[in-house]
Amino acid sequence: MAEENKSSLDALSALCKRRGFIYHSSEIYGGMPGFWDYGPLGCELKQNVKQAWWQFTVRGREDVAGLDATIIMHPKIWKASGHLDTFADPMTMCKDCKKLMRADQIKDIYADQKKKPQPKVAGSDFFCPYCGGELTEPKPFNLMFKTVVGPIDDPSNVAYLRPETAQAIFAQFLNVLSTSRQAVPFGIAQMGKSFRNEVTPRNYTFRSREFEQMELEFFIRPDEAIELQYGHVVTLADNPDIDGPVQDDWGWEVWHKYWVEQRKRFLNAVGLPTEHFVEYWQKPDELAHYARACVDIEYDFPFGRQELEGIAARSDFDLSQHQKHSGVSQMVFDDPLKQAAKKLDDAARSAFIEKTKSEWVDRRQKALSAKAGREIVLSAEEVEEIKSAAQKFCLNLFDGKYIPHVIEPSAGVDRLMLALLCEAYEEQRLTDEKGKDDIRTVLHLSPKVAPVKAAVFPLIKKDEAQMKFARDLFEKLRRKFNVQWDVSGAIGRRYRRQDEAGTPWCITVDEQTTKDGTFTVRERDSMEQKRMTTAEFLAMAYEALEF
Amino acid sequence: MAEENKSSLDALSALCKRRGFIYHSSEIYGGMPGFWDYGPLGCELKQNVKQAWWQFTVRGREDVAGLDATIIMHPKIWKASGHLDTFADPMTMCKDCKKLMRADQIKDIYADQKKKPQPKVAGSDFFCPYCGGELTEPKPFNLMFKTVVGPIDDPSNVAYLRPETAQAIFAQFLNVLSTSRQAVPFGIAQMGKSFRNEVTPRNYTFRSREFEQMELEFFIRPDEAIELQYGHVVTLADNPDIDGPVQDDWGWEVWHKYWVEQRKRFLNAVGLPTEHFVEYWQKPDELAHYARACVDIEYDFPFGRQELEGIAARSDFDLSQHQKHSGVSQMVFDDPLKQAAKKLDDAARSAFIEKTKSEWVDRRQKALSAKAGREIVLSAEEVEEIKSAAQKFCLNLFDGKYIPHVIEPSAGVDRLMLALLCEAYEEQRLTDEKGKDDIRTVLHLSPKVAPVKAAVFPLIKKDEAQMKFARDLFEKLRRKFNVQWDVSGAIGRRYRRQDEAGTPWCITVDEQTTKDGTFTVRERDSMEQKRMTTAEFLAMAYEALEF
Repeated sequence: MAEENKSSLDALSALCKRRGFIYHSSEIYGGMPGFWDYGPLGCELKQNVKQAWWQFTVRGREDVAGLDATIIMHPKIWKASGHLDTFADPMTMCKDCKKLMRADQIKDIYADQKKKPQPKVAGSDFFCPYCGGELTEPKPFNLMFKTVVGPIDDPSNVAYLRPETAQAIFAQFLNVLSTSRQAVPFGIAQMGKSFRNEVTPRNYTFRSREFEQMELEFFIRPDEAIELQYGHVVTLADNPDIDGPVQDDWGWEVWHKYWVEQRKRFLNAVGLPTEHFVEYWQKPDELAHYARACVDIEYDFPFGRQELEGIAARSDFDLSQHQKHSGVSQMVFDDPLKQAAKKLDDAARSAFIEKTKSEWVDRRQKALSAKAGREIVLSAEEVEEIKSAAQKFCLNLFDGKYIPHVIEPSAGVDRLMLALLCEAYEEQRLTDEKGKDDIRTVLHLSPKVAPVKAAVFPLIKKDEAQMKFARDLFEKLRRKFNVQWDVSGAIGRRYRRQDEAGTPWCITVDEQTTKDGTFTVRERDSMEQKRMTTAEFLAMAYEALEF
Repeated sequence: MAEENKSSLDALSALCKRRGFIYHSSEIYGGMPGFWDYGPLGCELKQNVKQAWWQFTVRGREDVAGLDATIIMHPKIWKASGHLDTFADPMTMCKDCKKLMRADQIKDIYADQKKKPQPKVAGSDFFCPYCGGELTEPKPFNLMFKTVVGPIDDPSNVAYLRPETAQAIFAQFLNVLSTSRQAVPFGIAQMGKSFRNEVTPRNYTFRSREFEQMELEFFIRPDEAIELQYGHVVTLADNPDIDGPVQDDWGWEVWHKYWVEQRKRFLNAVGLPTEHFVEYWQKPDELAHYARACVDIEYDFPFGRQELEGIAARSDFDLSQHQKHSGVSQMVFDDPLKQAAKKLDDAARSAFIEKTKSEWVDRRQKALSAKAGREIVLSAEEVEEIKSAAQKFCLNLFDGKYIPHVIEPSAGVDRLMLALLCEAYEEQRLTDEKGKDDIRTVLHLSPKVAPVKAAVFPLIKKDEAQMKFARDLFEKLRRKFNVQWDVSGAIGRRYRRQDEAGTPWCITVDEQTTKDGTFTVRERDSMEQKRMTTAEFLAMAYEALEF
């Protein structure tokens, strides 16, 4: 991390503490590494970010339903999802000083200490960066927090705090499908806490052990079903209009791109302009084995470029896994698809099956080759296995049945908040009226997420008419959004207090107000003042706050 | 539970499943006892209940600040709060059939089985209600879920999932005080998940292992500080106006009553009329040793009368415990108090100390006697101890320093939701136009919490002008609140679908709409229809939705 960036994070975190955005958890007891609390302004910001996401993703759409599932779920869910077996960091311990560390971070620890990594010895790539001792063979350490449900402390009662909100969506897919009047393509969205027992939580609130996610699983038809029903599948090569209404014949590639664009729109709406983040398309060799594509939206934090959210095309991997582990079919029935299939004769069906088989074999071979970095040739046995699965899949399709595929936009609340705060923070050099240099600390937060929307200041506290007007206005506004009242100190100081909180509008009630009902509205970023009536102010504020 | 009540809960839970309010957690894996998920309508209801509470308790007041702390906190917090030592159920096991049960619920188990409890034997009051075997001596079972933070599974790294949100508020009291421009009296509010490893979760969502709370800790001055500063303390005997603005000279008793009334107002506002709940003032022998008073607000659920929320006057117990266990002073400094104390001469100070000493001894004696149910006389040693604490307390007061006392209104989100659903549920017998008997299932939810605020129906789908008007209206409304669009089936059936979801207003766009811009708004409870313009509808809806 460059020194300059470090100090800007320091200044931001000092402001966050000072103004009640973010505190260390359990601070009076010495804190808990990787746990952070949001203070009065922080929790308003958090609620606003979550509500914005919910409005954008759920309430503002007809094809997405909400879910609010428990953090502790059936442990088999994590067996099915793969988290129980593979969600682990490699841990190593120094045989001398007994320090534990992540085997994949030893190089970073050396770098932090400005030491040169010691060369490879038996059992590990390096010597201990702390004492030079020998390190143990790295062992996987599962990142899920464990607990026991019920009074009997027994392996059969072990459960886990969810490491992601997504799996609950898959586990409740059938319930939501059958009770929400939705049909594929449609999505299920959830916000809530997740937990990862990070070995080395770091970078302020960026990588915490307890954090909050906003995840959408958008279920789509497999391309083969679209092909069968419409005789074609729209791909990106067709240059579809993804800014217009969604279309029935879009293939997964178009849906994936559509959601990348939707997520960018959301980020723009809450205050991150497109030119301030990076869209990184994962390379074929970086993708999980079931994934068709994955885009990371990355932000240049003071501690480096890091992932803000990901949009993954995950095929039918998740629902298939849950079908396998629960024994409950996750297939949907699609009557128009069945009717379309009925119209095909035997030859057309056979041709469809053969085409699907060869596409599946081809796709698997390409994916494995990309991962390996060289041409992989599948064995005859592997080819047969894939073909047999493709055949079964096609026969189900002809009956109008399939397991939906999924596009998953997955965002972290805390890291988005941190990005918004980094983006918003500025120490402005100003020259005051007397020509003196002055520094204004200001958070340029979008009004949509700003913790306080407006502050009301009566200019002269002793003027009863001013006080009454200001107070009535304050009472009226606070039924609509979060507003602060401030009567102490010079107006300039009151402005500065609100600048640090990111409040977009400061309303000053003065002598003229009591004559004509207008007041000054000082805009935070431009510092310009305009006279407005209550109705004018409300119209302006609603316009700025609505999605 | 009476059969009739049981069936009304059955009908409600069937509706909740059918319409996507509530599902079993992890249902496809056989479920998890004591864990429930909220579906698309349930999570909207939950968000609305929480937002209503937040608006009423935090944003709508100037003297309450918000907090959003972590679920996993420093384990010493639970030592300080007493949860580690005393938050336990007595568990017993049958030596024959090995069944575990709560010792205090054995009578209920016998009652459920319609058997007569078997008489007392050694080690337990009863024989096993399942097999008649001998039961073990009851042992305390702590209700906190345990986990381990960090990679080393060692007792020193054990942490707990919070069993209540309140303690985080005490742990962050100083941070909020110093960063929020608040001074005592003021409150800190928090909403969020809590966890209790209930041995026998029961009564639908009422007693779950994972649940959500909305808690406020309202910090007030000790009565002695008020006495010192104002020369008097307002008590309930003074008949203060607790519906008007809060007053500086209110004692704890008045603050406590004030918050009971505030909570009742909130319950009224979200749809529970005062005559539908019971205000139970705990008797002196039922109070926790540190509590001055506690009111339970109880609701007649189909499974019996149960606590909906509690409003407790907890003295300075919690902050004192945290001061003791953290070693960090939780005292606030109150300059006007110091200035008032300065004006007292030595004689007045001595008199104040003596008065305080005798009040403290008196209060302790009364509390102990009430608990014991007979007159308790304190030993000379105990009296000395209390007097010495009172003396220390007074000397701090003279310096303007004290640990704030607290009034704690504590509500459960899930049980309030359940009460609102029970209250709202009705199967109405109607006679249709043809004179046929008909049953209308309707949720009379308050518009403020209803998951869907309005539904828009074009009467004739094929009428392009109707469709366009309806669609434009829908698009406009959904930027403001949660709205549904429904074009399928007869209008009567669309009404019924919305009745089951608790939607207060159904808008039908018809032939006349395209002529004069008015549409019919059908009110859910009265089923009356009125013609309105968009502006009229919005004005009516805003009025009904605002707090």
